[in-house]
Amino acid sequence: MITALDHIAIAVPDLDRAIRRFLEDFGLDFQGTEDVVDAKTRTAFFPVPPTSIELVHPLNGEGPVQGYLEKKGGGLHHLCFRSDDIHADVERLKTKGYVFLTEAPYAGAHNSQVIFIHPKSCDGVLIEINQPQG
Amino acid sequence: MITALDHIAIAVPDLDRAIRRFLEDFGLDFQGTEDVVDAKTRTAFFPVPPTSIELVHPLNGEGPVQGYLEKKGGGLHHLCFRSDDIHADVERLKTKGYVFLTEAPYAGAHNSQVIFIHPKSCDGVLIEINQPQG
Repeated sequence: MITALDHIAIAVPDLDRAIRRFLEDFGLDFQGTEDVVDAKTRTAFFPVPPTSIELVHPLNGEGPVQGYLEKKGGGLHHLCFRSDDIHADVERLKTKGYVFLTEAPYAGAHNSQVIFIHPKSCDGVLIEINQPQG
Repeated sequence: MITALDHIAIAVPDLDRAIRRFLEDFGLDFQGTEDVVDAKTRTAFFPVPPTSIELVHPLNGEGPVQGYLEKKGGGLHHLCFRSDDIHADVERLKTKGYVFLTEAPYAGAHNSQVIFIHPKSCDGVLIEINQPQG
């Protein structure tokens, strides 16, 4: 079951500049960064409890966020809903016709399991589902 | 001062279908719709406390959301931060070089005062600031 809005991700071309923007100009709390090697991204976390804003930037100029930046320059990248049973939610949504970017969930940031729904299944919105691991 | 993430807005080409998606497929609460005549949008509210997801759709096929849908088909449209003093925040951000879509705040949904920062000031992200009226 979907239990919360886990985070909203923004793709940014200059991570340091964007961190300063959300920290100094908008006054959000800043929790630090994490490199998610599998996703080829460096992520900066701004908790806005109980959700958070995450800035995503390509790690070493590679990966899907790099492609997004080359195409769009930056922008709102995806929403993430938290699940208490990601496998059950994926199966339920597949039955309803949703298409996922991978066959099964995999390891994401903060030691969670994650999977993405294809934007074509959600009117152009990239939606992630994650489940924190105990 | 920015005090909260007020909402995340998603532009949708078919409002009824998108309401069913977030209500039935993702299991969010649905609070109803509101026509914001000045912005030429019909908005559907899904509270995800203390923030909310808002679906926006053009009213009578006109306005800025109509242009967005014609160009992009749909997608994550904007973020809105809540302010406890919108005029002070606008002045502060103008001093830092932020460009706004209008000179001053104006009436938005839920009887609030709202203003939008130009996406070029925020790496392609359209950011709204609002202040609920007492």
